[in-house]
Amino acid sequence: MSDKIRVGVNGYGVIGKRVADAVRVQPDMELAGVSDVTTDYRIKTAAVLDLPIFASLPEKAAEMQAAGVPVLGTLDDLLGRIDVVVDCTPKGIGAKNLARYRAAGVKAILQGGEKHDVAGHSFVAQANYASALGRDATRVVSCNTTSTVRTLGALKDAGLLRKARGVLIRRATDPWEADHSGIMNTVVPEAHIPSHQGPDAQTVLPDLDVLTVAAKACHTQCHLHYWIVELTRTASRDEVLGAFRQAPRIAMVRASDGIVALNSTVELMRDLGRPRGDLWEVALWEDVLAVHGHEAIYTYQVFNEAIVVPETIDAIRALAGRMTDGAESIALTDRALGMRRDFLIGRETADDGADERSAGA
Amino acid sequence: MSDKIRVGVNGYGVIGKRVADAVRVQPDMELAGVSDVTTDYRIKTAAVLDLPIFASLPEKAAEMQAAGVPVLGTLDDLLGRIDVVVDCTPKGIGAKNLARYRAAGVKAILQGGEKHDVAGHSFVAQANYASALGRDATRVVSCNTTSTVRTLGALKDAGLLRKARGVLIRRATDPWEADHSGIMNTVVPEAHIPSHQGPDAQTVLPDLDVLTVAAKACHTQCHLHYWIVELTRTASRDEVLGAFRQAPRIAMVRASDGIVALNSTVELMRDLGRPRGDLWEVALWEDVLAVHGHEAIYTYQVFNEAIVVPETIDAIRALAGRMTDGAESIALTDRALGMRRDFLIGRETADDGADERSAGA
Amino acid sequence: MSDKIRVGVNGYGVIGKRVADAVRVQPDMELAGVSDVTTDYRIKTAAVLDLPIFASLPEKAAEMQAAGVPVLGTLDDLLGRIDVVVDCTPKGIGAKNLARYRAAGVKAILQGGEKHDVAGHSFVAQANYASALGRDATRVVSCNTTSTVRTLGALKDAGLLRKARGVLIRRATDPWEADHSGIMNTVVPEAHIPSHQGPDAQTVLPDLDVLTVAAKACHTQCHLHYWIVELTRTASRDEVLGAFRQAPRIAMVRASDGIVALNSTVELMRDLGRPRGDLWEVALWEDVLAVHGHEAIYTYQVFNEAIVVPETIDAIRALAGRMTDGAESIALTDRALGMRRDFLIGRETADDGADERSAGA
Amino acid sequence: MSDKIRVGVNGYGVIGKRVADAVRVQPDMELAGVSDVTTDYRIKTAAVLDLPIFASLPEKAAEMQAAGVPVLGTLDDLLGRIDVVVDCTPKGIGAKNLARYRAAGVKAILQGGEKHDVAGHSFVAQANYASALGRDATRVVSCNTTSTVRTLGALKDAGLLRKARGVLIRRATDPWEADHSGIMNTVVPEAHIPSHQGPDAQTVLPDLDVLTVAAKACHTQCHLHYWIVELTRTASRDEVLGAFRQAPRIAMVRASDGIVALNSTVELMRDLGRPRGDLWEVALWEDVLAVHGHEAIYTYQVFNEAIVVPETIDAIRALAGRMTDGAESIALTDRALGMRRDFLIGRETADDGADERSAGA
Repeated sequence: MSDKIRVGVNGYGVIGKRVADAVRVQPDMELAGVSDVTTDYRIKTAAVLDLPIFASLPEKAAEMQAAGVPVLGTLDDLLGRIDVVVDCTPKGIGAKNLARYRAAGVKAILQGGEKHDVAGHSFVAQANYASALGRDATRVVSCNTTSTVRTLGALKDAGLLRKARGVLIRRATDPWEADHSGIMNTVVPEAHIPSHQGPDAQTVLPDLDVLTVAAKACHTQCHLHYWIVELTRTASRDEVLGAFRQAPRIAMVRASDGIVALNSTVELMRDLGRPRGDLWEVALWEDVLAVHGHEAIYTYQVFNEAIVVPETIDAIRALAGRMTDGAESIALTDRALGMRRDFLIGRETADDGADERSAGA
Repeated sequence: MSDKIRVGVNGYGVIGKRVADAVRVQPDMELAGVSDVTTDYRIKTAAVLDLPIFASLPEKAAEMQAAGVPVLGTLDDLLGRIDVVVDCTPKGIGAKNLARYRAAGVKAILQGGEKHDVAGHSFVAQANYASALGRDATRVVSCNTTSTVRTLGALKDAGLLRKARGVLIRRATDPWEADHSGIMNTVVPEAHIPSHQGPDAQTVLPDLDVLTVAAKACHTQCHLHYWIVELTRTASRDEVLGAFRQAPRIAMVRASDGIVALNSTVELMRDLGRPRGDLWEVALWEDVLAVHGHEAIYTYQVFNEAIVVPETIDAIRALAGRMTDGAESIALTDRALGMRRDFLIGRETADDGADERSAGA
Repeated sequence: MSDKIRVGVNGYGVIGKRVADAVRVQPDMELAGVSDVTTDYRIKTAAVLDLPIFASLPEKAAEMQAAGVPVLGTLDDLLGRIDVVVDCTPKGIGAKNLARYRAAGVKAILQGGEKHDVAGHSFVAQANYASALGRDATRVVSCNTTSTVRTLGALKDAGLLRKARGVLIRRATDPWEADHSGIMNTVVPEAHIPSHQGPDAQTVLPDLDVLTVAAKACHTQCHLHYWIVELTRTASRDEVLGAFRQAPRIAMVRASDGIVALNSTVELMRDLGRPRGDLWEVALWEDVLAVHGHEAIYTYQVFNEAIVVPETIDAIRALAGRMTDGAESIALTDRALGMRRDFLIGRETADDGADERSAGA
Repeated sequence: MSDKIRVGVNGYGVIGKRVADAVRVQPDMELAGVSDVTTDYRIKTAAVLDLPIFASLPEKAAEMQAAGVPVLGTLDDLLGRIDVVVDCTPKGIGAKNLARYRAAGVKAILQGGEKHDVAGHSFVAQANYASALGRDATRVVSCNTTSTVRTLGALKDAGLLRKARGVLIRRATDPWEADHSGIMNTVVPEAHIPSHQGPDAQTVLPDLDVLTVAAKACHTQCHLHYWIVELTRTASRDEVLGAFRQAPRIAMVRASDGIVALNSTVELMRDLGRPRGDLWEVALWEDVLAVHGHEAIYTYQVFNEAIVVPETIDAIRALAGRMTDGAESIALTDRALGMRRDFLIGRETADDGADERSAGA
């Protein structure tokens, strides 16, 4: 196994548990363990799944053991066994942990909750895999920013993007939250315009003319984005859709198939047997997208719990420096996860998608 | 009383019951009665309030009587006693009723659910009161369109409007609906871009460059609009806010006052003692509005159950032809209802607002 | 005015603002002022309504003034002008304030959030008005407990109550809350059986055989109670309904009138013109109640924001000692507020209800 | 394959698609195909999964083909290839289909939406597997009734059950519904007491003294039941819990593990890698259950989309008559699905559970 990238996940929460799942299905990676500080069902399921469990804080080890969590050691022990750590701790903790990772000589991936300056590099595979090669740390941007870079990046690569304005209708809290963290029967607009996602996309694609506003709606799963895009020229629907089809990790859905809302797509993922019902792709409504002259308007769905997982897998490879071609890493990740370019047409998989891309390149 | 405009309301539902309330507080109107076909609590409350009740369909009269609703007669009897009827029946019924109203020589106001062509005229007081004078029928446009005309009309009147793109986050159903008419834990984007509200605004302001998209979120009260507006020139925040302040029926709210969401404003209306907690004004977030160069971005709240009520009152006067000055009717309506230009600053009422407007005119 | 009971309200929140409204419409009371520590729209509406405003904490006075809230003085100044203070501060604060009220020689009413032992007396008007006469303090029990005492007390007074088991389906947070205090798309059962409401009812009616369980559902307005009651004997529906009709502050609703859910009743209150749409009565479903042999099963609605308001008004009179007959105070309170024994039948008011009660006594 | 039970599923909806999944993992069954009439994503996912697809109505075949659904034939063709059909069509259709199944000589399983009299037999594996052996048809009772029979049956088998009263807090609609079938921000009590679930349990366990009331709350996944049970004698918590542990398909959850609400358990299922995140067991809160003297009160969760699936698998075996011992079928079904007696303790599986049961027998 020594030729595999040894990966550890610090923080077994919404993102951490999904990254652990994804690492385990990569042919070139092994999961050395996960670490956390909790004693509840979240970490106990890791035990049921026989994952090696470590205590992120030494002082928590005894408490976890007492609660029946089989703790193998502390985070330092885990760091001693891995090449790359994926920090999935709550916002702000990752920044504190980075020095510790560096001291242990372990490459580190932070999540979008951390500021760009902490790692000094923000990552979206299709946009800047190469610039992360061999770095000691990077930040995988947030779910909303990842989807923005994937889609606006697609239009940019096709030479179609001049200016983009986005309205983000965000989910209020995650579906499992039961401790009064939600909003009820209302919509909460952010008190500041523009919202942070626009500028955040510029940490990956600096020259975008992008601006976003955001509101929280009272649902628990997935964000819906609307984009009003000024194109560089008059274009047809097919040209715009073609640009999205050339890009990785954008899959088409259609209202004409009965995919009419966020929860339709969530059900579709369950029907397709996706682990946890996850949607890693940007789900873009092909038959809703409209183009008038040099203006394109479209909407897509962001599955906030999982969309950054494939980017995180690619970021592991980039930091490990084992694979220099980003497109190769993307294709490998997508094949291992079973990602698709279209959920219902034929048997089209991400693998075909990869061919499509090279054909299109 | 013969010098008062005699008004009847056909359809005692969400809009009808509010129009009946508003007519009763107008110094120059009298409510001759309301008509409906139901036997449930809605119409029974009209009896508790001692409103004259009529049966919209003769065949329903007996059933209503049997249910304890004191029916005074049929819709024809009501039509015989009034100058203007406000049709608040379900979408599509108003179109069928219009011929009957005309045959009875009664002027008619239809709601936004009907097509523009049915009445041949669509109404928003500040925009086209004069063109409705003496007509036999008009249509008060829908809640979303009314708010669009009020706000874009304000920018247009100030010479600031070039192009407007709106994203509407709509409520799914009304707060009282209990019979499985709602959506749950999702957002439903409309399957067609653009949505109908943009073109509908052009029935009142034909030369607007406006386009809208819309999604339903899973809350029950009020729509939230986001607008991205291209101005005719570089302008300051104060210029844009000034344009809104000059226009009627736009009231400012501030996140800094704790008005941070749709339900904050709803609670504010209850705190102010508004009947039914109604918000007739467009509630625009003063401290969220942003202007960058010649681009303005802002958000406001539309209380869909009540926003068209003041327009309906003005439409009654316009059709009756008793008052030729729209600004005079608007001021009278707003004073009678107790509308405000700002909900929290000082004692500022719509009346002051009216002065402000003439001062500003 | 010196012959009126001078009342102050400390804490202008959900309950406080309603108590202030109710005091202002009582013929034998005057509102000397309200005090709070906030600077947001809640207290600013008190200014718009011209209520005398005081700062609950001296150090907050300047901040409130700076925010535009016209502060007349501190809580001590208010205490110097009143006979009775109604403490509507957050849970736990009232207990801290009691000593201060006593030191000022002001009688005090605490809310149900405080423990029984703090005031040493828990109050529900129909059950124990007399025992509160002349006391220096009492606690008006919580919304759920108030409804339990009203309804089980009615069955007890009719000699029908042996044992009662209740299942409470509670609202998760108040309708105005926008700051992530809600639960979403779930039901949260309390982790302990029995829940506290049963024992709490025994602080007012010590000999009840009552036990409750409770769960939070994801709606924002009103609790729904189900009760399974073992009667002392076989009884008819009419006997059980008659017992409820004899008791004050229980009003009947009927599914056959279209009152089919919590939000139907909320809409009914808006339709009846209730201030803030408040429901002070227990709304009991007359046509859903079932009696089989000596078992009665029924469901009713508790409007948590307002149901304790009439009890609080009676508690003010009891502490002030001006009116010795509880039934007289209840009748006066209910008439002043416009409470009803039935919302839709005829013009039946609480006044008639009072007659009905004496007739039934 | 000829020695396997050949199964067809008519109706590929919420239940049908899950039954199809479950049949495919049974060692003694093969899925001959599924039939439906739709053309949307639901049936298209069946094609992506390579399931043999038939048209339930001949006239729909062409339309389905045109929509890209690979239709192999009609329902009659499917009936010609199977031993048992599981009818998962909408309520009322199954009753119409039964004659057709009988005419084709195919044994049939109907769902709980149909009346007991249609099949003349209602099925819950642990209660009456034997009485279904060799029958030509049976009805698998609804999700709520299945959970009631599992839990009250457990108390009955332990000789502890005298009388049971249940309050059911139901989900309003399924999580994927986006077409206005939901209720919003309310609770809807059933207009009749008792609700139908109590009597329905008596179609399987005729001598139960059971009565239920039910309300719909505004969430989309899982029902919560509260039960107030009069025991035949004074018992301890351990005795009552022991009775539940002896019975199949009841798994314990604990608030102390952070399983504090319906959505906690749903997340736990996703974390455990359950297909579609399904929960087939009754999830009973071990540390919330209370016993006072001869009264037991407890709450559990019913995953309405999946709980009847294992019962359906057992019903297939019972009708096919291949396996005469119900306990053997239950153990086989549970092992094939990966059901558990406890989700977090050790590696305890349904298999161990089976041993546990025989040990306990």
